[in-house]
Amino acid sequence: MSYDQSTVRNVLAKAKEDRRNSLTSSEAKQVASAYEIATPAEGLATSPDEAATIASEIGFPVVLKIVSPDILHKTDAGGVITDIGDVDNVKASYASIFDNAKAHNADARIDGVQVQAQVTGGLEVIVGATTDPVFGKLVAFGLGGTLVEILQDVTFRLAPAESEDAHAMLDDIAGSKILDGVRGESGVDRNALAQTIENVSHLVNDFPEISELDLNPVFASTAGAVAADVRVLLDFEAVPQHHQHAPDEILTAMKRILEPSAVAVIGASAEDGKIGNSVMRNLIDGGYEGELYPVHPKADQILGHQCYPSIVDIPGNVDIAIFCIPAQFVASVIAECGRKQVAGAILIPSGFAEIGEHELQDEIVKVAREANVRLMGPNIYGFYYTHKNLCATFCTPYNEKGSVALSSQSGGVGMAIIGFSRSAKMGVSAIVGLGNKSDIDEDDLLTYFEQDPNTSVIAMHVEDLKDGRAFASVAKRVSKTKPVVVLKAGRTSLGAKAANSHTGALAGDDRVYDAVLRQSGVVRAKSLNDMLEFARGLAVLPTPKGENVLILTGAGGSGVLLSDACVDNDLALMAMPSDLDAAFREYIPPFGAAGNPVDITGGEPPTTYRATIDLALRDERIHSLVLGYWHTIITPPMVFAELLGEAVSDARAAGNDKPVVCSLVGDVEIEQAAEYLMDRNILAYPYTAEKPVAVLGAKYRWARNAGLI
Amino acid sequence: MSYDQSTVRNVLAKAKEDRRNSLTSSEAKQVASAYEIATPAEGLATSPDEAATIASEIGFPVVLKIVSPDILHKTDAGGVITDIGDVDNVKASYASIFDNAKAHNADARIDGVQVQAQVTGGLEVIVGATTDPVFGKLVAFGLGGTLVEILQDVTFRLAPAESEDAHAMLDDIAGSKILDGVRGESGVDRNALAQTIENVSHLVNDFPEISELDLNPVFASTAGAVAADVRVLLDFEAVPQHHQHAPDEILTAMKRILEPSAVAVIGASAEDGKIGNSVMRNLIDGGYEGELYPVHPKADQILGHQCYPSIVDIPGNVDIAIFCIPAQFVASVIAECGRKQVAGAILIPSGFAEIGEHELQDEIVKVAREANVRLMGPNIYGFYYTHKNLCATFCTPYNEKGSVALSSQSGGVGMAIIGFSRSAKMGVSAIVGLGNKSDIDEDDLLTYFEQDPNTSVIAMHVEDLKDGRAFASVAKRVSKTKPVVVLKAGRTSLGAKAANSHTGALAGDDRVYDAVLRQSGVVRAKSLNDMLEFARGLAVLPTPKGENVLILTGAGGSGVLLSDACVDNDLALMAMPSDLDAAFREYIPPFGAAGNPVDITGGEPPTTYRATIDLALRDERIHSLVLGYWHTIITPPMVFAELLGEAVSDARAAGNDKPVVCSLVGDVEIEQAAEYLMDRNILAYPYTAEKPVAVLGAKYRWARNAGLI
Repeated sequence: MSYDQSTVRNVLAKAKEDRRNSLTSSEAKQVASAYEIATPAEGLATSPDEAATIASEIGFPVVLKIVSPDILHKTDAGGVITDIGDVDNVKASYASIFDNAKAHNADARIDGVQVQAQVTGGLEVIVGATTDPVFGKLVAFGLGGTLVEILQDVTFRLAPAESEDAHAMLDDIAGSKILDGVRGESGVDRNALAQTIENVSHLVNDFPEISELDLNPVFASTAGAVAADVRVLLDFEAVPQHHQHAPDEILTAMKRILEPSAVAVIGASAEDGKIGNSVMRNLIDGGYEGELYPVHPKADQILGHQCYPSIVDIPGNVDIAIFCIPAQFVASVIAECGRKQVAGAILIPSGFAEIGEHELQDEIVKVAREANVRLMGPNIYGFYYTHKNLCATFCTPYNEKGSVALSSQSGGVGMAIIGFSRSAKMGVSAIVGLGNKSDIDEDDLLTYFEQDPNTSVIAMHVEDLKDGRAFASVAKRVSKTKPVVVLKAGRTSLGAKAANSHTGALAGDDRVYDAVLRQSGVVRAKSLNDMLEFARGLAVLPTPKGENVLILTGAGGSGVLLSDACVDNDLALMAMPSDLDAAFREYIPPFGAAGNPVDITGGEPPTTYRATIDLALRDERIHSLVLGYWHTIITPPMVFAELLGEAVSDARAAGNDKPVVCSLVGDVEIEQAAEYLMDRNILAYPYTAEKPVAVLGAKYRWARNAGLI
Repeated sequence: MSYDQSTVRNVLAKAKEDRRNSLTSSEAKQVASAYEIATPAEGLATSPDEAATIASEIGFPVVLKIVSPDILHKTDAGGVITDIGDVDNVKASYASIFDNAKAHNADARIDGVQVQAQVTGGLEVIVGATTDPVFGKLVAFGLGGTLVEILQDVTFRLAPAESEDAHAMLDDIAGSKILDGVRGESGVDRNALAQTIENVSHLVNDFPEISELDLNPVFASTAGAVAADVRVLLDFEAVPQHHQHAPDEILTAMKRILEPSAVAVIGASAEDGKIGNSVMRNLIDGGYEGELYPVHPKADQILGHQCYPSIVDIPGNVDIAIFCIPAQFVASVIAECGRKQVAGAILIPSGFAEIGEHELQDEIVKVAREANVRLMGPNIYGFYYTHKNLCATFCTPYNEKGSVALSSQSGGVGMAIIGFSRSAKMGVSAIVGLGNKSDIDEDDLLTYFEQDPNTSVIAMHVEDLKDGRAFASVAKRVSKTKPVVVLKAGRTSLGAKAANSHTGALAGDDRVYDAVLRQSGVVRAKSLNDMLEFARGLAVLPTPKGENVLILTGAGGSGVLLSDACVDNDLALMAMPSDLDAAFREYIPPFGAAGNPVDITGGEPPTTYRATIDLALRDERIHSLVLGYWHTIITPPMVFAELLGEAVSDARAAGNDKPVVCSLVGDVEIEQAAEYLMDRNILAYPYTAEKPVAVLGAKYRWARNAGLI
């Protein structure tokens, strides 16, 4: 597409000169046309006769609309008359529109009456754009009409949206099928519609002063997409830019921060119960092997380590300084950290923005930027990086090494991460508290974890994003290689924002977050427990090689629940090929059910479980296996667990590594079986059919987004 | 409403005589009118001139429609022309409709052309009825038009639906708000629309041979509701009636079965590993104190109990006989049970319908009905009734007494119930396996549990209902006094059924189950784990006295997640009165947040938790309390657990018993705190914000349905 930017520039300049915050219909149409957005033929008339002439040129039927900068809601002012079929009616309508407008607002400046070809037929849709405080320019698409206003069947993407995004938006809405025509109606030209979305997204991206835009309705048909009405709202005030660090600077700093060779503890203490003491103990007890420098104005030694009166007195290099001092002393020490070329200040202290002390927080950010020191926090528990035996925190130490990296914005959620990890024996690479996020945020962590060989899955608890656009960009890249799980808290608490356009009003916060997170390839968790289970599970499950899921169960009842769960999680139950069906039937009783689920029935011995599991693991047409074990006397829980452990380990040795998840139903012994299997990296859950399938579903969501299946 | 049944009877009789399975438009309209369903003025024309005359009488615009028993889809045959404005066009349209119809089907019998007033304006909705294999006659309501066909925004109720149901249906659909008018449009006459629904439901209820019915579209406006098109499909074949036991007979039998004074074990065995041995052991070890009669052809004594060669040889009365013999011997022993006036046969054996042996199952049902013996099963684990110390099962014994009654259709789910109960120390009154449900089903259990003083909550795993209508009727009554939780399995596995009407096609199985379960006041659980947690939790939580929920938390992050969960579960966060706000502020730091959630902040000692919890428990405006505890050094988990236990116990002693649920975040010690609280009947869950709120939400759903708040 070649866009005529200069026309738009001129129209906007005039509006700015007039100090207007919206365009007139005819200006809006000019802007649309400049960006290849089709609008109906039209002309501006300033007399009944001129209106009649224009209408005759355009062809009937026509619509007349008042043109006035002082009348924004034309319909409410009686300023719109539709379906005008001949010249006489055009003249009469012109007069009555004029009268209505004057009655509505006697002082309104009236520039004339717009005569427009009446677009009919086709499907009414809405295309628009809005400016989100977190994500910036967004383009929207939804079905039109009053009904849809109620159902709010609309989707969003970051602008500019490229062709692939625009086409994906058409499929995103609930009523998507109507675009292909229903009950004999012809469908719409999807390319034309997607192109309109793309054009709108480029328009608002190229001209950030366009704050909101509505094409409402757009009539979409086989013949194309025509915007019957264009509404453009403006905001010429500059949007504050987020501070951006250069990508290579980010990575250099984050590597020094997460994997430091030397750590200083500001406010280290020998006194039990002090935060500065807990941090020292955790570093020492956790087995940190780098240099450790306690900083204390007077002490000589703390916990066997040489003490320094200030960070500048430390002889060697220092990578991070962990702050265990009151808020009011933080800024000056950050400045010292700068002189010492410390990469990061880990700000445990509270007493900043979280209690309303915004100025104090702004000050430390300013000092840090000048000092070239990155800040983690303030108001955090600290962080863990297990592969360096680093517990840079006042909380309980945690050392179970693994490949899951987690972050939380809240201390409470951070503690839940630690507790769950310990309880579930989940190996982690890092746990990071982000707290007030005065500087380091999710983007920085993603940039680090992306290249960290010790991390394979990233899970984040997020309350808000400082810069949604930066997050989306990094997350989109990282999620191509490593799953990014996000628990977005606060998704339902924010009310609708005041907005002057339809698109703006439809952009409820969570709908936007949801669309952008999906666009970024993020696996969204709906609950804290889901986030934790997804984190654990996604690190364990291999990437499936295809969509074919097989359910194999000893309990028919579990088979039904597991099937339900597969449908709920968009998993495809494999259609069973006849040879494979026959192969399963060799092992199961005549009244058992092959097909999918394969029901081996409850009375079967371990050999039947083993033989059918082996078959399922071996056959390459089966890409993932969902097991439903039923506790019986003939195949007790631990016997099942051992045989499954062996089967999976044999299959892995033979190169058949596919996702296996397991639901266990039975008496309390199944808890031990689940633990045994979990210890062997086989996901198994007692008393639930839904959880194992939900975790498998999360793996599939990620793999599809990453283009791996 | 006074319905003209004889007109309908005559029309249907004629259709039956003609061996037709549908009514003509004009017949359908007659039937509709007889049941006070408004339709447009119309007349049947058999010539262009006659059509013109009728149109002139009715008034323009009019619609012409072909009338032919051989053309069901009129539009597809070019048999409908709308928007006809004058007499000439009527004549021309008549001719072309006739030609189109002949071109479509040269052999079609054409009865004429219907001239109908064109109804315009107002909102298009659909009202219909269908016949469901499980639930029988259902009435449907949804929004009309092609878009809605895709969105399937439709709801169902059992017919006949009374006024309250019909009005509830208007609120049930997602687009409900459009009925009240959007953006200046006037709303519809809700009474007229509800009355139409009611009338349709009575029509199909009074005339079961009407298998499907569509009013599509109905134009609803301020002026009323007019059905522009009426379609009626017929099925004159008799629907087989479900066998119904009389209610008092059910209760008498179920009491003897669940609380037997004497139990016979058919196929009792002294041999370890046999089912007849496990059952005997469970009865003895479980502490059953009634008479116990092992039946064995040869043995003298089994496990210290006098043996009998057959049940008829037992000297005393026998209430239940537990079958531990192969399938082929079951029928003859049921007959013997009849002679012995045994109330129930507990059929553990498998080998019936579940493996395709339908005839064998039909036989035992027939024998049992003749013998007046109720059957539980076959193909079950048996059942438990703890308050009689009765473990009538071959599974592991379970004796934890409590007030939760559970049933399952699948053995696997039954085992999960037992395992979960034991693990969670959930007290139960009964656990019942229903298996193939050849006779005793959920209705019978509900009838018993309704009056059982030992049962306060009923939870059921259901794969299918034999007689959905009977279930709905009993469940509606029982759920007024005791929560009924249902996990409906198989909800997503069944495909759409073939159907000839819109309404029929929209009646996807799960949508119908969902609507009827809600209509019956049932709390539906979405997963096995939800069913189990709801069962445990609903028995523990007192009934809230109102909708005001307060969140009180030590972790701001938990507060956000708990708020999300409240919105997800339709819980209303109380607007904080200023005096109460001030009262909370007395205890919390100045930077803490009152309002709702009340955030006491993470650094607070036990006294702050205690003072604020006491305040929340005491204030009568707060109806339910959601707590978010955060593990800290100053208030460790067990300290919190003990203070909360004491606070709740003090409040209960003072008569302030309100629902309290608790989310615990922290290190593994919170698991012990959760267990401590659960042991004291305070619902507390580690590592999750969502679960406690979901359980509270389930209690509210029940209480609202039961009319208690």
